[in-house]
This record gives sequence, structure tokens and C-alpha cells, in this order.
Amino acid sequence: MDLATIIGISAGLFFILYSIILGGDIGGFINIPSVIIVIGGTIASTMINFPLTKMMEVATVVKKAFFHKEESLTEAIDILVGMAEKARREGILAIEKSINDLEDHFMKEGLQLAVDGSEPDTIRSILENELSNLENRHKSGQAVIHAMGLYAPAYGMIGTLIGLIQMLRTMEDPSSIGAGMAVAIVTTFYGAVLANLVFGPMEGKLKLRSAFEITKREMIIEGILAIQSGDNPRIVRGKLMTFIAPKERLIEGK
Amino acid sequence: MDLATIIGISAGLFFILYSIILGGDIGGFINIPSVIIVIGGTIASTMINFPLTKMMEVATVVKKAFFHKEESLTEAIDILVGMAEKARREGILAIEKSINDLEDHFMKEGLQLAVDGSEPDTIRSILENELSNLENRHKSGQAVIHAMGLYAPAYGMIGTLIGLIQMLRTMEDPSSIGAGMAVAIVTTFYGAVLANLVFGPMEGKLKLRSAFEITKREMIIEGILAIQSGDNPRIVRGKLMTFIAPKERLIEGK
Amino acid sequence: MDLATIIGISAGLFFILYSIILGGDIGGFINIPSVIIVIGGTIASTMINFPLTKMMEVATVVKKAFFHKEESLTEAIDILVGMAEKARREGILAIEKSINDLEDHFMKEGLQLAVDGSEPDTIRSILENELSNLENRHKSGQAVIHAMGLYAPAYGMIGTLIGLIQMLRTMEDPSSIGAGMAVAIVTTFYGAVLANLVFGPMEGKLKLRSAFEITKREMIIEGILAIQSGDNPRIVRGKLMTFIAPKERLIEGK
Amino acid sequence: MDLATIIGISAGLFFILYSIILGGDIGGFINIPSVIIVIGGTIASTMINFPLTKMMEVATVVKKAFFHKEESLTEAIDILVGMAEKARREGILAIEKSINDLEDHFMKEGLQLAVDGSEPDTIRSILENELSNLENRHKSGQAVIHAMGLYAPAYGMIGTLIGLIQMLRTMEDPSSIGAGMAVAIVTTFYGAVLANLVFGPMEGKLKLRSAFEITKREMIIEGILAIQSGDNPRIVRGKLMTFIAPKERLIEGK
Amino acid sequence: MDLATIIGISAGLFFILYSIILGGDIGGFINIPSVIIVIGGTIASTMINFPLTKMMEVATVVKKAFFHKEESLTEAIDILVGMAEKARREGILAIEKSINDLEDHFMKEGLQLAVDGSEPDTIRSILENELSNLENRHKSGQAVIHAMGLYAPAYGMIGTLIGLIQMLRTMEDPSSIGAGMAVAIVTTFYGAVLANLVFGPMEGKLKLRSAFEITKREMIIEGILAIQSGDNPRIVRGKLMTFIAPKERLIEGK
Repeated sequence: MDLATIIGISAGLFFILYSIILGGDIGGFINIPSVIIVIGGTIASTMINFPLTKMMEVATVVKKAFFHKEESLTEAIDILVGMAEKARREGILAIEKSINDLEDHFMKEGLQLAVDGSEPDTIRSILENELSNLENRHKSGQAVIHAMGLYAPAYGMIGTLIGLIQMLRTMEDPSSIGAGMAVAIVTTFYGAVLANLVFGPMEGKLKLRSAFEITKREMIIEGILAIQSGDNPRIVRGKLMTFIAPKERLIEGK
Repeated sequence: MDLATIIGISAGLFFILYSIILGGDIGGFINIPSVIIVIGGTIASTMINFPLTKMMEVATVVKKAFFHKEESLTEAIDILVGMAEKARREGILAIEKSINDLEDHFMKEGLQLAVDGSEPDTIRSILENELSNLENRHKSGQAVIHAMGLYAPAYGMIGTLIGLIQMLRTMEDPSSIGAGMAVAIVTTFYGAVLANLVFGPMEGKLKLRSAFEITKREMIIEGILAIQSGDNPRIVRGKLMTFIAPKERLIEGK
Repeated sequence: MDLATIIGISAGLFFILYSIILGGDIGGFINIPSVIIVIGGTIASTMINFPLTKMMEVATVVKKAFFHKEESLTEAIDILVGMAEKARREGILAIEKSINDLEDHFMKEGLQLAVDGSEPDTIRSILENELSNLENRHKSGQAVIHAMGLYAPAYGMIGTLIGLIQMLRTMEDPSSIGAGMAVAIVTTFYGAVLANLVFGPMEGKLKLRSAFEITKREMIIEGILAIQSGDNPRIVRGKLMTFIAPKERLIEGK
Repeated sequence: MDLATIIGISAGLFFILYSIILGGDIGGFINIPSVIIVIGGTIASTMINFPLTKMMEVATVVKKAFFHKEESLTEAIDILVGMAEKARREGILAIEKSINDLEDHFMKEGLQLAVDGSEPDTIRSILENELSNLENRHKSGQAVIHAMGLYAPAYGMIGTLIGLIQMLRTMEDPSSIGAGMAVAIVTTFYGAVLANLVFGPMEGKLKLRSAFEITKREMIIEGILAIQSGDNPRIVRGKLMTFIAPKERLIEGK
Repeated sequence: MDLATIIGISAGLFFILYSIILGGDIGGFINIPSVIIVIGGTIASTMINFPLTKMMEVATVVKKAFFHKEESLTEAIDILVGMAEKARREGILAIEKSINDLEDHFMKEGLQLAVDGSEPDTIRSILENELSNLENRHKSGQAVIHAMGLYAPAYGMIGTLIGLIQMLRTMEDPSSIGAGMAVAIVTTFYGAVLANLVFGPMEGKLKLRSAFEITKREMIIEGILAIQSGDNPRIVRGKLMTFIAPKERLIEGK
């Protein structure tokens, strides 16, 4: 699991709890009806918004985004340059055996197409089509989290409105106003924490992971086409290196 | 009807009602003038915003989006691959008879054009033109729901302002302030529930359904052109499979 | 005048007034300084934002959008198909006489270019250029209404701030607070009603009318080029029909 | 100076002042610390946001947008059609002398390129490059005003928060609460007026001026290329006229 | 370091402090729990949102944007025109020696490609690929600052909600309400200052620096291709000058 995520979630909760305890006891911040309306309402609206299959997918997407170790682009570059060397030395058919050992499903498929002798335009169009479909699926995963990040504070407000209306209607004893208000506001607090500590950062991470996977696949497409056209491995590396920041390149240039 | 929708709407209402009952009786949350101004005002502004024909269409669009069973892309792929096999074996004219049995209006029209021997460019341009017009009509349906999702909380606020002004002007008896405020805030509550439990998720679902239908038609266009150009049925299936997530492909690959 | 617009505006005002009268008398909702600052301020900011000529155009644009009867696309299709038949039977020069009877300025100009024997590329580029300029002019008309929809609630808030500051400074007699607050809030109320019952829906309608006029002209361009290239009238109708929803097509197919 | 701007600013200030005086004296609305934090803070944040050179440019851009008389497109059309006539009668070299009398730097440069016999593609690419650079510079000018329109109300809120905190901490004498609140809210009032009477409309005007200048230059590019290709002056006028609304065209057609 | 940045930050802090001191002592504005929740929470959410490597990069990006002296485009133009003169006089190979003295990594790489005799299309595609990757990396740097600018006020609000709930629950002594509210609001104040004096302007500056670097590289690409095609140095200067505002050009025309 990504270390930053563990530290981030723990730290966020710690700072909020610390700030609460510093000013009093934590009791006033636990309110079951508030939990029910914020969590329940958010899930309910999300269920109307998205088909069941999409909602189930989200668990997978989220797990992958947070627990999957971030790979480096350079590993993929090394593999592709190795393929380019072999293809140039022994002909493109020589790489067929190495393809089976590849872990990356996308690279495997693309290289197989190249080995099979498909036209470059065909390879590009098949792989780019797959890429744009992947992008669409990623976007729909992000959309679920984005929607939850909007519904959570909305139900926080709805819960607070309910609490306010109930408090105002039974306002016979002015001394009880404060406690009623406190309970009402707890729901807004829940919505704000969910949106800013959970759904917001989660959506951001999903977007970054998706952008990374897309860049990687775009790089793989360029690499496969360069291999097929029989480019010099040094040129192949040069082309693929443009996908990496100059600083990182120096490190790898060692 | 889509199960998630029924569960979602029921659950959302349940959580809100449960949360209300937990804190007191439900009486204070029923206020006829608030209902009138939120529902009435939202409909009034929507009627100015959109022509009558568009507003009537919305009922159809909404019904279709919520009650229409979600089809799978694989069914369409199977049909297209079947056509491709027949066309390759017996010539493209052989599929003319099977066309009449098709349910999908769009696939029917496209295959008929292919059988009639229209140029690939003509077929693509006619079908893509139709597709982009479909997209425009979908967007205008979503626009109506989107507008209602904006007008509802706006009229919620207008109703609350009316209540506040009336309460403040007759504030002789301080003990009645609470009750007046409670009534005023109920309107904001109505607007928030309508926007977040009804119009927001509904708009989201319409967008997803529309995106699905457009993807499906894009896939059909690719399939028809591949059939006409006499592609190998295995290649046709390969091309169309890129529209499906790899995981689903495995399931279907069985 | 569009029936929905009359009903919408009347209904919106009725619901607001009904809601006011239900809770008290209407007197507290009429406040001349509030009217001055909201209406006056909105017009003042709009005058700085837009040149005088643009502001004058808006009256025309609004009138056209609300009082102009919505035409159907099918009428234009029928005219174009009629022209296509004549051109195929008697040659393209034969339609020159019919052109003068056309009401649509854009169709007239385009057909005249076709009759004059201009190159298809020239016709397309002249008409598309005109179309994109029309789109720009429409957008600038919408921009004025959009700006007014933003300035109105902003001046509502400015007026409320003025009222609040004055009330707070002279707060010797606590019993007068309520009345002062009520007056201050009336300005926010005016801004909210103007934005949500007037400017918002009006902007929406202008956008829809503009989109319709642009679709119609795009269809006319396709039609004229098809006529010039001597397409079969049945093909011309087929091409133009893609601009209409399938359901409407059935009705017209009778 | 543009008349609408003078009237707009005067009217806006008048309505605000009138509304203040109607409800009491103006004294409570003048507060030096509020002025300092709103104006000072806005300038400070803008200085961090933009390099010094950009901020200095803004003065020029604003002055040009507000004091420069709006030119009509028809004047430029007349000049270009005149050039087209001369070029057709006496050859393109004949217009070289008239070029020096032109005021418009852009038209001058483009016509000189045409006279020098540059390729149409070269002329188009040089002029479009210049046009897109102009657009970028305009956008960065608008960005400064846009940022100020966001910072002003933000510092208004910061100032109000400062006032609120100070008032709440020294709340021994309840009768002084009102006055303290009034002072705090004045800062929000300043921010709202600056954003809605000054920066908002100013940004809008800059955008319109920029759009007009860009349209004019696009028209000039079309005109110069038409002159070079030796188009009939009537055709040149026809092409350029598409940049003007039909109504205006009628007026000029007299 | 950019002078405007130092002046801006100092001035912003000065205006805020001055405004505080004018109205009382600064003691009430220092609250450790508020600092903890705003700073800590913002960093925590950002750590979940972005991978650790991205967050570390930000320090570099920020430092570069604020301390790097803004270069002028004209220096790069002079270098490129010098190269063009040499290449025209002595052949393109003659510039190889001068390339090594260049500081700009991008220009160096592009000129080397030109000297090596790569195809213009290859050079353009390699450099544009690198350019679009640079743009992506810049955007992800801006995204971190943008996220912090959203999380800071969100945690300000969360901290204020915590303070409000605690104050309302222990509201036995009404005279302590003010002090409790003051403490609660301080957190919102912190969030607002961080968003508007630090993160907002910082994001703006990063965007401008990025836009400048991209424009510069686009200009370099044009220049290198012009040099390779053996353009007249005067034409090269003319092409590159279109990237500069006319006013600046005059200054340089001296």
C-alpha cells in the first residue's frame, strides 16, 4: 500500500481528533442519526445515480489505486528497448517468445500484433481505441467518487436543517438551544470531513493514477510502432525518454 | 425497472424520515406553502427555460433511463460477429434477410446501407451524423433535469427568505421566533432534498445511459464498416472487444 | 408568443405571491430603495460590461426568442427536397425562380450561390463562415443576460449589507431589529427572484433557440450541397432526416 | 471615452449612495482599516500572482478598453475592398503606396507581405501566429483583472472575520455588539462593490474588446488573401460582409 | 528572487496585521489548535491526494517559479538568429560548435537534431512530444498547489465547526459565548488567509511561468525548423518576433 496514503489518512484523523480533545471531550461529536443520514443518504443518492455494476467496480478501482505500488516508466522503457535490440538483431519474429513472459497485458497485445505483421495504422488504431475505452472506464470510476464527494456535504446540510427545524420548534427552554444546535451542526461536520479527508483526495489520486496509466500506454504505443519500423534502439530510447522529466532522465542516464 | 434505483430512492427517503422521527415528530416538516413555492416555482422557471415539447420529452427520457433494462454490449457484438461470418461465407447480400429481425433501429439502418452497397465514407458520415444528433437530443433532455436541480434549491432559498421576512416583521412575541424560523427553513430543506435525492442523481443516470448508448452506436458503426470491408470475423470480434473492459472480456472469453 | 413562457412567468409570480399572502400581508415585500439598488445596480454594471450597441441588441434578441413561433425543421426539409426534385428534373438553373419566394435569408443566399455555379468548397466555406459569425452574435446576446443574472443577486447582497450595517449601527431599541432585518433581507429576495425567475430561464431559452437556429442552418448547408451535387431527392431527404429525432420522423413518415 | 462606461460607473455609485442616504447617514460606511485591508490585500495578492511587467501592462490595457472609441468593421471592409479594386485594375504592386497611409499596423504588415509576393500559406501562417500571440497577451491582461475580482471579496471576508473576532473577544458590553458588527460587515460590503461594480464589468469589457479585435484581424486576414488571389472586389466584399450581422449589412447596403 | 513576490507577501501580511492591531491586540488571533487543524489537515489530505514524489517535486517547482529570474524571449531570439546567420553563411554543420555553449537544454537538443540532419517532421514531433510532456508535469505541479488552496479553507471550516460544537455544548455561561465563537472563527480566518495570500497567488504564478516556458519552447521549435530549412535570418527574426507584443518589438527595434 502507498505509504503516503496511510500517513495521510492517519494524520488527518489525528489532527481532527487532537483538535477536538484539546477543546473538550469527544462525546459531543458522536451522533448516530447524523451518521445515518450522511452515510446512508450519500449511498442512496449514489445508487440512483449509477448502475449497480459501476458501484461495485469502484471498490476494485479504489483498491487498485491505493494498494497498487506505483511502477516506474523506466522499467517499461527498458523492456521495450530490449525488444527493439532483439528485433533489430534477429528480426521481429525473434521477440515472439519473450512476449509471453510480459506481465503488461497491453504491451503483450500490441507486440503480438506487431509480430503478426499487422499494418502500423491498424496497430495504432486498435491500441488507441483500447486506450480511449480504458480512459472512459477510469472516468466513470472517478465519477462515482466525485458524486459521493458532492452528496456527502449535501446530506450534511440536510441533516443540519433537520436538526435546526426540530430545535427551533421545541425552543421552550432557551438553555437547551446550544445543545440542539451542537447536535445539528455535527452532521455538517461529518459531511465536511468525508468530502475533504476521504472523497476529495481519493478522487484526486484516482485521476493521477489514471493519467499515469494512460501516459504509460501512450508511451508503449510509440515504442511498439518504433520497434516494428525497425528503429535503432538508441532512437527508440530517445523517443520514449521524452515521456520522462529531464531530471529523472539524468538519474537513469548514469 | 432498475433495482438500484428503487433501493436508492426508498433508502434515501427512509434515512431522511428515520432521522426526522428519531429527533421528534414529522409534523413540523410538512408545510403546504413551502411545497407550493418549491415545486411550483421550479416548474414555472423550467417552463420559461424550455419549450413545451422539450419538457414533455423529458418524461419519456426519464422513464426510459430508469425502467429500461440495461443491455450488455456483448449481445450486440455477438449479432455483428454473426453477420460478419455470414457475409464472409455467403457474401454481404446474404445478410439482408437477417436484418429485418433486428430490434436495434440503428444497426438495422447501418447494415441496410452496407447491403445496398453505399460507399464506406457515406455510411460512416450518415451514421455519425445521426449519432451526433442523438447526442444533442440526449443533452437537451439532461439540460431540463439539470435546470430543475438548480431551480429547486433556489426556490427553497426564496421561500426561506419570504418566511424570514414575515417572521422578522411580526417579531413582537420573541417566543414565536423559533417556530417562524422553523417554518422558513423547511423550504430550504425541501429544495435540498429535491436537488440531492431526485434531480442530481437523475441527471447523473441520464448522462451515463446516454454515454452507454453512444458507445454502443460507435461500436456498431465500427462493426458495420468491418463487415462491409469483408474483415475476418475473428478480427471483427477483436475490434469490437476493445469497447469492453478486459475483466468482462475474460468472462465472455469462456 | 410562446405559450409556455406566458404560463411560466404567470405561474412563477403567482406561486411567490400566493406563498407571501398565505403567511401575511404583502406590504413588507415592497421596498423602493431595494428596487432601486437591485435594478439600478444591475443595469449600471451591465452598461460598464457591454457596449451600448450590444445592450440595445438584447431587446431584439429577447423579443425574437420569446415571441417568435418555433418553426419545425420539417418545413425546411420539405422545401429543400422540393428544390432537389426540381433541380434533378429540370437542371439546377430551374430553381432560380423559386429562390425569390423563399423567406429564409440563409437558404436563399446558399441556393443562389449553388445556382451561380460556385464551387462546393466555396459555398460551404461562405455559409459556415456566416454560421460561425451568427453563433458569435448569439453568444454575445446570451452573455448580456448571463451577466444580468449574476449582477442581480450580487446587488441583492450589496443592498442587504447596506441594510444590515444601518440596522446594526442604530440598534438602541432591540425591538426594532426585526423590522430592520426584514427590510435588509427584502433586497436579497429581489435579487434571487430576478436571477431565478427572469434572467436564468431567459438565458436558457436564448441558448436553446440559438442551438436550434444553428442546427437548422447546418441542415440547410448539407441540403444545398446535396442539391448542387445532383443527389437523388430520396437521398437528400434521408440525409436531412438524420437531424430529426427518430420518433418525429415516424410521425412525418406517414 | 465610451459613454456607457461613464454613465454605468456614475449610475452604479449613485444608486449605492442613494440607497445608503435613504436609510441613514453615510458615516458608518467609511472605515479606513476596511479600505486598507481590501485594497491593500487585493494588490498584494495580485503582485504575488503576476510578474510586475504584467501588472503594469494592465493599466494600458484597461485604458485602451475604456477610452478607445469602438471602431466599426465596415471601415476596414471599405479599405480592403478599395485595395482589392486597385489591385485588380492596376496589379497588386499598385497598392504599395496606399499601404503607408494605413493606420492599422496589422493590415499594413499583411498587405506588405502580399505585395512582396509571399506565398498565401506563409502570409496566413505569419498573421495567424501573430493573432494567436495577441490573443494570449489579451488573456493575460484579463487574468489580472479576473484575479483582482476574486481577491477583493476574499479580503472583504478576511476583514470581516478580523472584525468579528475582535468584537466577540471584547463582548463585555452587549450594547456595543451592533456597532462592532457593523464595522466588520463594512469590509465585506467594500469587497462586494469592488467585485461587482469595478472588476467584474471591467473584465467583461476587456473580453468583448479582445473578441472584437480578434474578429477584425480574422476578417483582415481573409481580405488580404482574397486581394492577393485577385478576387473580384464584389466577391471580397461578400466574403468580408459575413463577419457582420445581417441587420447591419442592410444599413450599410444603402 | 522576484521582487514583486517579496513585496506582495510582505505587504499582504502587513495589511492584515495592521488591520488587526488597529482594532485591538493580536493575541486573539494566535490559536495553536487552529494552526494544527488547518496546516495539518491540509498536508494530510494533500498526501492522500498525491504520491510522495509529486509532493516533493512541488518544493522544486515553487522555488523555481519564485526565485528564478524571468528571462526575456528576445535573448533566445538573438541566439537563434545568430545561429541562422552562421548556418546560412557557413552551412548548418558550422553551428555544431556553438551548440555546446548553449545553456538552454531544449534548444541544445533541437539544434543538435537539426545538425544531425534529422527530418523536419521528426524534429518537430520529438520536440513537441517533449513539450507536451513538460506541460503535463507543470500541470501536476500546479494541481498540488491548487488542491492545497481548496483544502486549507475546508479545514478552516472544519476547525470552526469543531469550535462551534464545543462552544454550544458548554454554553452554561452566556458571557463566554463570545470568546468561544472568536476562537472558532480564527480557524476560518487562517484558512482564508492561506488560500488567498499563499496558495491562490502561488498557483497563478506557476501557471504564468509554465505558459511562458511553453511559449518560449514553441518559439524555439519554430526557430530551429527555420534554421534547418535555411531561411533568411531576417525572415527568421520576423517569424520569432510574432511571439512578442508589438510594443516590446519597438523597443528592441532600436
